Amino acid sequence: MSSCLKTSAGQSRMGECTVVGKLPPELMNIVFRFHGVDDPKVIVGPAIGEDAAVINLDGLYLVVHSDPITEAASRVGWLAVNVAANDVAVTGATPRWASIVILLPENGIGLLRPIVEDIDRAAKELGIAVVGGHTEEAPGVEKPTVIATVMGVTRRYVATSGARPGDVIIMVKHGALEGTAILAYDFEKMLLGRGIEREVIETAKKFLDEISVVKPALLISDITDAMHDPTEGGILGALYEIAHASQTRIAVYKDKVIFRTETLKIAKTLKIDPLKLISSGTLLAAIPPDKVNEALHRLSSRGYPVAVIGKILEKSKSPCVEVYEGKKLVETVKGFVKDELARLWELAKPYPQD
Amino acid sequence: MSSCLKTSAGQSRMGECTVVGKLPPELMNIVFRFHGVDDPKVIVGPAIGEDAAVINLDGLYLVVHSDPITEAASRVGWLAVNVAANDVAVTGATPRWASIVILLPENGIGLLRPIVEDIDRAAKELGIAVVGGHTEEAPGVEKPTVIATVMGVTRRYVATSGARPGDVIIMVKHGALEGTAILAYDFEKMLLGRGIEREVIETAKKFLDEISVVKPALLISDITDAMHDPTEGGILGALYEIAHASQTRIAVYKDKVIFRTETLKIAKTLKIDPLKLISSGTLLAAIPPDKVNEALHRLSSRGYPVAVIGKILEKSKSPCVEVYEGKKLVETVKGFVKDELARLWELAKPYPQD
Repeated sequence: MSSCLKTSAGQSRMGECTVVGKLPPELMNIVFRFHGVDDPKVIVGPAIGEDAAVINLDGLYLVVHSDPITEAASRVGWLAVNVAANDVAVTGATPRWASIVILLPENGIGLLRPIVEDIDRAAKELGIAVVGGHTEEAPGVEKPTVIATVMGVTRRYVATSGARPGDVIIMVKHGALEGTAILAYDFEKMLLGRGIEREVIETAKKFLDEISVVKPALLISDITDAMHDPTEGGILGALYEIAHASQTRIAVYKDKVIFRTETLKIAKTLKIDPLKLISSGTLLAAIPPDKVNEALHRLSSRGYPVAVIGKILEKSKSPCVEVYEGKKLVETVKGFVKDELARLWELAKPYPQD
Repeated sequence: MSSCLKTSAGQSRMGECTVVGKLPPELMNIVFRFHGVDDPKVIVGPAIGEDAAVINLDGLYLVVHSDPITEAASRVGWLAVNVAANDVAVTGATPRWASIVILLPENGIGLLRPIVEDIDRAAKELGIAVVGGHTEEAPGVEKPTVIATVMGVTRRYVATSGARPGDVIIMVKHGALEGTAILAYDFEKMLLGRGIEREVIETAKKFLDEISVVKPALLISDITDAMHDPTEGGILGALYEIAHASQTRIAVYKDKVIFRTETLKIAKTLKIDPLKLISSGTLLAAIPPDKVNEALHRLSSRGYPVAVIGKILEKSKSPCVEVYEGKKLVETVKGFVKDELARLWELAKPYPQD
């Protein structure tokens, strides 16, 4: 349930300008505390850094995750299915079934068809069956909101907390694909004004099509100790969540992280750190040293860009992420990472394109 | 997914005055059509009258249902868990786990604690563990919205479509408990003005505490052909959904239906038919004739009010519900039933209490 950490950075995609603050830790603790009965069948429940719940059905593990997307654009259906499916896949379970709630604004029935078409496309691409849900025009909802609950089962699950000292951290696909696309939509005028070519912006927008990490996650799920799907707070935020969940100290080598040129151009122009930019589309995995070559081979032979970017140093009751540039320690992350998108919106208030 | 049929009658509880129209059949068909891949493991998928999905995990059936509640009041958490749990229980599965998304309006963090306390209370009462979800301040949401996905497993499931000719229809608990409470909240001034005693209204409001049908449903799940949890459209609406799902003709004996005196008083005052009033809190079951006595015994010995109210007449490609008063056929329901609450709000527009 690292999703509880998300700000609306994830919701400010494509034309939205409101950024709402991250839930402070004391409020997260309230949410975690009021959780109904304790059930020993619940192997992974509400916890910081754990994206999906794992329930033991006599040796078969049911994995489930719910995520809302609040959007005006038709991509809301695509995003909802993909984001929730990612969270299921990083436990090693194949996303199979989705229960989907669609809340439309009043008189918003006309918005329904592109949304369900988009859900259908995403579900078909991932092999997911939509098994039910609920659709309504809801009073008090200003724009279409889609809440996807995705489920899958697995005989072996991995949790964010599974990372162990000595594990090598790899990243699969490029960093900040999601954040780059959001910036291309939300800061388009500013980027054009600062000399970014239209072609770069259009390419960046299409990164939204690439936010799934389901396939690469399932390719290596049997040989990883932990996987994670970085969202808000980007790669550094996700690494801190791994450190926190597994109670370890982590080293990351900044120069090894791979980004698309569009991401680097846009980040440089807006003076933001792409390592802290919302990052669906990237997969992080902690892999035992003797399995790293196998993992890299499996992924590269299927065409996935992949890089070794860090390692789990040791167990620690003060979990942290040490960021190295070459051999130089340049930053130590000791808490949850504020997403660069949230910071940008604060700087840009009230509306950057006006 | 009969939930797709719900209007915001279910959302106009306690002080809300907007009523949004039922999704027309052609739009429901769009939702049902765009459902991702076809999966033979999905035994009960999106269909009219089926409240929960049933997925076959090698003989163990996973049952799942998602429902949103859009409310200003703190009871939103209570309602969300109970309404979704009811839909799971009527398949015969014990509701066990919930994934819950809480969307708060901007700067609405202060609203969180009563909501999660309410979720916790409902979950504890039902034996449910909250396994995860997502909480955020969401731009574009005017008031707290809680979306509960409740899951359970069972070795034997019943579907709304399981009703067979000869089955006896029983109702457990009283009709329109939910609708009566909603009217007591939303039409309080009007009811007082028309001479309804304050005590009646306060008693009626408390009916919201009684909307669970989980326990009685599980008491008889092994001896029923079908169960249903009437929501919008009330008991008649639910009977039509059973008729439609099981392709049968149904007879219901109006005089046999049991209501609380508060419901009858309020319905009479507002000139509405309590048979068509949103009705969470009532359980309907279609029971083979040789099991009826056993069902009645199990329920009454646990203190549940119960009544035989109708029967499944025959298979029919033109499913309908024939309503009898004594021996006289007084109405034939051949389509989805508009909830009396929706009709009332339309009459009362713009705002009945102004």
